[in-house]
Amino acid sequence: MTGSTPLRFDTVSFLSDYGRVDEFVGVVHSVIRSIAPEVRVIDITHDIEPYDVRAGGLALVRAANYLAPGVVVAVVDPTVGTSRRPIAVEIGGGSSILVGPDNGVLAPVVRLCGGADRAFEIVNPEYRFTTEGGTFDGRDVFAPAAAHLCLGVDISELGPEIDPISLFPAMVPLPREEEGLLHAEVLWVDRYGNAQLNVDPDQLEEFDDVVRLVLDSGARSARRVPTFASLNPNEIGMIVDAYGLVSVVLDRKSAAEELGLRTASAVSIEDIDETRPSGTVTPVDLGPRRI
Amino acid sequence: MTGSTPLRFDTVSFLSDYGRVDEFVGVVHSVIRSIAPEVRVIDITHDIEPYDVRAGGLALVRAANYLAPGVVVAVVDPTVGTSRRPIAVEIGGGSSILVGPDNGVLAPVVRLCGGADRAFEIVNPEYRFTTEGGTFDGRDVFAPAAAHLCLGVDISELGPEIDPISLFPAMVPLPREEEGLLHAEVLWVDRYGNAQLNVDPDQLEEFDDVVRLVLDSGARSARRVPTFASLNPNEIGMIVDAYGLVSVVLDRKSAAEELGLRTASAVSIEDIDETRPSGTVTPVDLGPRRI
Amino acid sequence: MTGSTPLRFDTVSFLSDYGRVDEFVGVVHSVIRSIAPEVRVIDITHDIEPYDVRAGGLALVRAANYLAPGVVVAVVDPTVGTSRRPIAVEIGGGSSILVGPDNGVLAPVVRLCGGADRAFEIVNPEYRFTTEGGTFDGRDVFAPAAAHLCLGVDISELGPEIDPISLFPAMVPLPREEEGLLHAEVLWVDRYGNAQLNVDPDQLEEFDDVVRLVLDSGARSARRVPTFASLNPNEIGMIVDAYGLVSVVLDRKSAAEELGLRTASAVSIEDIDETRPSGTVTPVDLGPRRI
Repeated sequence: MTGSTPLRFDTVSFLSDYGRVDEFVGVVHSVIRSIAPEVRVIDITHDIEPYDVRAGGLALVRAANYLAPGVVVAVVDPTVGTSRRPIAVEIGGGSSILVGPDNGVLAPVVRLCGGADRAFEIVNPEYRFTTEGGTFDGRDVFAPAAAHLCLGVDISELGPEIDPISLFPAMVPLPREEEGLLHAEVLWVDRYGNAQLNVDPDQLEEFDDVVRLVLDSGARSARRVPTFASLNPNEIGMIVDAYGLVSVVLDRKSAAEELGLRTASAVSIEDIDETRPSGTVTPVDLGPRRI
Repeated sequence: MTGSTPLRFDTVSFLSDYGRVDEFVGVVHSVIRSIAPEVRVIDITHDIEPYDVRAGGLALVRAANYLAPGVVVAVVDPTVGTSRRPIAVEIGGGSSILVGPDNGVLAPVVRLCGGADRAFEIVNPEYRFTTEGGTFDGRDVFAPAAAHLCLGVDISELGPEIDPISLFPAMVPLPREEEGLLHAEVLWVDRYGNAQLNVDPDQLEEFDDVVRLVLDSGARSARRVPTFASLNPNEIGMIVDAYGLVSVVLDRKSAAEELGLRTASAVSIEDIDETRPSGTVTPVDLGPRRI
Repeated sequence: MTGSTPLRFDTVSFLSDYGRVDEFVGVVHSVIRSIAPEVRVIDITHDIEPYDVRAGGLALVRAANYLAPGVVVAVVDPTVGTSRRPIAVEIGGGSSILVGPDNGVLAPVVRLCGGADRAFEIVNPEYRFTTEGGTFDGRDVFAPAAAHLCLGVDISELGPEIDPISLFPAMVPLPREEEGLLHAEVLWVDRYGNAQLNVDPDQLEEFDDVVRLVLDSGARSARRVPTFASLNPNEIGMIVDAYGLVSVVLDRKSAAEELGLRTASAVSIEDIDETRPSGTVTPVDLGPRRI
């Protein structure tokens, strides 16, 4: 609209656990619009489970390779108002800046992008709003910082530099191999009920095409398939999902619901035991494991 | 932002069953922003019931007359990863291009707009992302195609031409008249519980102002009224809705909940039988029909 | 995109009870995009409880100080299609114009901004769509009016002037003091379960730091704290929230759920009675009050 000076960044990508029912997301958009009118704000998602820092960090990683360069604001912030630091982290040689609380929500994407170039605490009152109550840092701290960064304010203007080594670390669970078993974990259940595991397709190469999944709800057989449509009705499948990880799925049904899976559920993968009498997998097979 | 070459289209209207909880919608926005930064993406809705191709097609039709010219992306895609074709369909003499799977989700709006001018399969790897897993065509196929179309890539560049006659057809249910009865069907229940029927106001002209609705939950009388506020409390009404169709409604209450209606529920309309003893409508009047 | 004449307003802030499941919000965006392509639409929220005019008005007030100048469209409209007037209200010396039904949804923000400068009824058919059914004024009346106002149409072109004194008044409940008690009310429960009261921090100054809250579900003690993190697990707190009002909270838990609070619930605040035998607060303390 205005014939203004060129922007340093023209996109803010925004993720939070604010939900859409209250006006929080709209207010953050409005603050950015008021400070830096030319900037476009892209909503990644705002329905991260309240306070679920890990889920927010993982959603950001799933989206990261596709985000427009610019500022990324991620607010999942159970300890807002405490001494946890509001931070801005430069990554990718200055191509993007991450803004949010230093509680781990930014950490997985920092690691994915090769680590932090520089990091600063956001304390400069020139680039924050001061309000009586300190419970809405998205509005009062992160949105103004993001907008000012877009306008060309240098990241070092926001506050004192932080040693990147002191940033809250990423804590992504790795699968564990043990005597023919792969102990994995559900990272994410999507809208369709697909359950993404922390497993690379390579890690399944030593297993048969049909494996046994040992779950809290019992043992089930699952077949590795290239597409959902390769599955028979109600057959459990394992596909390589759109993020290059292994997901447990059903065709047009919720695998998570069917199998009682949710984020952080344990899933162990093993070959089906040929020495058992029937060679088949019983639907429920819990109790002491004999492998 | 950038002083770029003019766009062929400057708006992408986007509908899906992705929901808002996962980051799918945000990633599609980000992909379009990265390829064609000047384009504006308008979200029609993303809360189509998962896999409900018909509901997606009908929502698109309800919105169609109001959309800005440009590219329309519609992704309700239960058979993603199979041989169902990703397509781009030119309509309206080139004023708009529809992009999505060839499974019927685009078909009602193609028909509404007078049929397809031209159609092409989206296979050109220059305008798609290649990923290991093939489960997120919104990100990998439809968003890049839409963005490149906006930039001026000709629709014929996306892949081989398709005979429009071979496109998946629209399947919209028509009401059926029989001996004074109009057998209709619920097309859509909106947020307020209004139940839109596949009935034009003209088709009610031969009926009395107060009619009997025969539903799965019993028979109820309903009165044709011009506005919600014309109804008495708990009186069932039939209004001409904002789309020019007949909707079954209550004033400030959910008719769908009250009457047990949902998408595809059967609703038969008939005059109230004057020959019955009381001339009134009993609240529940099922069993063998005597007309 | 187009090198058009400058806009009078370049932002429409939009709040409604339309929800996100149907395509209503997307259609309103599309209408504005079609009439005034350069305008940016900011969604405040669309998940106001259906028909809850008061909740819509309060959400607008919470957001108001942060909105970009421009047109504000607020649609919570239980009596759409009746004689309730569609209005445009100029505030702030012409810095913003509010558009919506004259049913009270705009009234709190009009009052917050110092009253209406001018008000007009939106009836000019040049700036409205005419449709057979009159149930979607967001699409047919409010969006076109907002877009034309952005393009520079003067507010007085929309229809006849209305005396601001005749506008539907704001009805915000005030707390009531009585013999050491402060009878307050829940204005809003947010996503995290914090329950905002209609109480200024000043009004608590005469009370002790730990007070008794008398609720429908019983009496509970609550402590005034500066941040969520100052609370012990399961301890009820009262903080000054991000809007400068007092909220009843728990740390990382839903106070509303724990205490059975929702919008309009009564909350009375009193000092803990030192003359009672134990000096402590019993978890449940209903029945006839003896103060």
